[in-house]
Amino acid sequence: MEKVYAKDLKSYLGSEISFSGFVDSIRNLQWVMFVILRDSTGKVQVTIEKSEEKNKPFLEVFENLPLESTVKVRGILSENEKVKLNGCELLLSEVEVTSTSVPELPFSFKDLSTTTLDTRLDYRFIDMRNDRVMAQFQIQSALVKYLREYLYNHEFTEIHTPKLIGTASESGSEVFHVDYFDGDAYLAQSPQFYKQMAMASGMSKVFEVGPCFRAENSNTNKHATEFTSFDVEFSYIDSFDDVMTLESEMLEYALRNLKDNYGEKIKELFGVEITVPKLPFPKLSLKEAYKEIKENYGYSISEEEQVDLTTEAEKLLGRLSMEKYGNEFIFITDYPAEKRAFYHMRKDGILQGYDLIWKGVEITTGAQREHRYEEIVKNAEEKGLKDDVKFYLEFFKYGCPPHGGFAIGVDRLTMLLLGIPSVKETQFLFRGPNRLNP
Amino acid sequence: MEKVYAKDLKSYLGSEISFSGFVDSIRNLQWVMFVILRDSTGKVQVTIEKSEEKNKPFLEVFENLPLESTVKVRGILSENEKVKLNGCELLLSEVEVTSTSVPELPFSFKDLSTTTLDTRLDYRFIDMRNDRVMAQFQIQSALVKYLREYLYNHEFTEIHTPKLIGTASESGSEVFHVDYFDGDAYLAQSPQFYKQMAMASGMSKVFEVGPCFRAENSNTNKHATEFTSFDVEFSYIDSFDDVMTLESEMLEYALRNLKDNYGEKIKELFGVEITVPKLPFPKLSLKEAYKEIKENYGYSISEEEQVDLTTEAEKLLGRLSMEKYGNEFIFITDYPAEKRAFYHMRKDGILQGYDLIWKGVEITTGAQREHRYEEIVKNAEEKGLKDDVKFYLEFFKYGCPPHGGFAIGVDRLTMLLLGIPSVKETQFLFRGPNRLNP
Repeated sequence: MEKVYAKDLKSYLGSEISFSGFVDSIRNLQWVMFVILRDSTGKVQVTIEKSEEKNKPFLEVFENLPLESTVKVRGILSENEKVKLNGCELLLSEVEVTSTSVPELPFSFKDLSTTTLDTRLDYRFIDMRNDRVMAQFQIQSALVKYLREYLYNHEFTEIHTPKLIGTASESGSEVFHVDYFDGDAYLAQSPQFYKQMAMASGMSKVFEVGPCFRAENSNTNKHATEFTSFDVEFSYIDSFDDVMTLESEMLEYALRNLKDNYGEKIKELFGVEITVPKLPFPKLSLKEAYKEIKENYGYSISEEEQVDLTTEAEKLLGRLSMEKYGNEFIFITDYPAEKRAFYHMRKDGILQGYDLIWKGVEITTGAQREHRYEEIVKNAEEKGLKDDVKFYLEFFKYGCPPHGGFAIGVDRLTMLLLGIPSVKETQFLFRGPNRLNP
Repeated sequence: MEKVYAKDLKSYLGSEISFSGFVDSIRNLQWVMFVILRDSTGKVQVTIEKSEEKNKPFLEVFENLPLESTVKVRGILSENEKVKLNGCELLLSEVEVTSTSVPELPFSFKDLSTTTLDTRLDYRFIDMRNDRVMAQFQIQSALVKYLREYLYNHEFTEIHTPKLIGTASESGSEVFHVDYFDGDAYLAQSPQFYKQMAMASGMSKVFEVGPCFRAENSNTNKHATEFTSFDVEFSYIDSFDDVMTLESEMLEYALRNLKDNYGEKIKELFGVEITVPKLPFPKLSLKEAYKEIKENYGYSISEEEQVDLTTEAEKLLGRLSMEKYGNEFIFITDYPAEKRAFYHMRKDGILQGYDLIWKGVEITTGAQREHRYEEIVKNAEEKGLKDDVKFYLEFFKYGCPPHGGFAIGVDRLTMLLLGIPSVKETQFLFRGPNRLNP
């Protein structure tokens, strides 16, 4: 008999079912014992009347079983409107203990405020038993599913590019070194070069969801040494406008589906109302952006510093985009090119790309790439990278269509979606300079 | 105007369209020039009548343009049944050269038999321009999409587990070492421990598609130092039978959808007829398997060697499964446990797991896992691993439901699906002891 999941109980009222899960709590009263069982989708109440002879062995099992042990039970799922939990209770006919927990957990996962984030991460598998943390991973999975779905619907091809690379290319300083037999390898900081290799091959529309590695010795709530990146690249664009359009449509699609399917749950558990953004997203040049936040919020920095957005400026642009455009998203364009990677296309010193701010935090850098051999060689030379990226420059020698793309950090996106303070909590297992375990 | 892709041309007959792609070939005759343009989905013929005055500038462009350059053109897509290619031709009104190739390619991608696999991999972005290679990646993407789709339909959660790990756990010898700031890290050989951590957290159904790293200094057509693994793990199983059932249903689902959507293309390009397997897959114990191939094909090895399948035995079992059961797939069970990883469940010395053979090659090892704390500690001790896997053993102390799972190598699966001789050809970029570039 197949296990029924808690969320599907309503379809089985009056039937005999099999249920498996963790022993969440036990209330042992004079005449009756209530056992709450929990699976990944919810909970069910088991009611054991002490007066019934047939219940003796079940009582014995649960009287001696530590909470968080796992059981497999069978019984009639009986409708009972007095039961707050789902309006039904399970009346047992069989119990099997499938694993026994030690009596004491390292911390109480039901109230995470009683412990530190470090302890939670040390025992992540217990932390995840918390309703919110469990839901967070299901929601993250759905988020990535909908992002992918949009791309599949637009005939993108998913690729799996190597993480072991032969040269510390993109920016040598922040790359991890690997002992590779008798030689050296490095861990890819992003699939950027390989996404572009796909463009040079004629693949035309690709994406990848995979790990990126950054040997950055910094500790912020937005950074990790390993993180999951959602990378997109496509050909035959006319300008980076096409990239902005695709990204905004993809995000709109994902948020719309998330709201439809998880909106209630997200509101209940995280207190967050999902907003499906209006299209097109508002757009400001960097100069306009600084002008607007000066006029509206009195924030200003010197002109020399206005080559990028400060964290405070991002925040205020989040506010501006809500107040002025009624949109949680806003594109910022027209950055000076020299501060950006050499592979971005530039025109008169202006980056042919954008940053995307969501809820006051930057979530993406996107751009048209430089696909013209002479230009990309010149750009690489200017940055003193020509020898390091020799293999990459080859991609552009034999014909390569105009193309562009962007990347989104999945953990950061989840953080902003659910209003969670740090990627330490949204990664399956956070990795930072001081954390490699479990 | 949005680019029309070659595969969609039929819907635009008689209309003005925009097309972008590579210059695949040029036939320059006395009165007319034929230019074939190629994108990732097919080709289109551009016909340029030399007598027409308005065509002068177009002729000039193509007369001086090396093949494999890329262009963006506009024109009327005119029906013409004399044209073999799609029965239509493009009559130009605009041409823009978007990139210029050097005149000579390193090899001819149209006939791969004229070059070596090493050269092809050195210039993978040119190799991929070959029709078959291009299609192979689109088919692989669809294959993974359908596998995922089956799991989404069964409410699995996708996870992203860390590839940087703190201890060289599973089997220390074949693990890559990473310099991690002032300390040491290692690259995960598989997400096995973390999939099981998810089970201990109560997640109940998870999967991951991601890279695995093996520091194996071997050169075969089935191995790579980095490969994409499709990993599945789920809870509340009664035995490894449940794992076999899920895996076979998942593969049936994927192959059925592949046949429906890519069957023609696969047959045309690879000469392979996709067979949707019958369920359930046939199943033999290891002992029965050796008995059958001895009786049917006269193959036999000593009883002491019959603790695992030889490559030849796998091959013959592929033949047997076709001849006796009419199925390309066959499960082999009842392996002696001592040769297998300590985390597999065993019963009286017998592995509670299986290997799955497809077309005579092993594609999966699956099993029920040991979830009982005392048993898993004992198993780890027997292998002398207790200290190395200390963090892992913790997962089973606080209640953990019975669970099992399996892993499939995506590159190997693609190899068998399309009848390609080696994973060197089915990986986006192959990684082996002697290959880290490009």
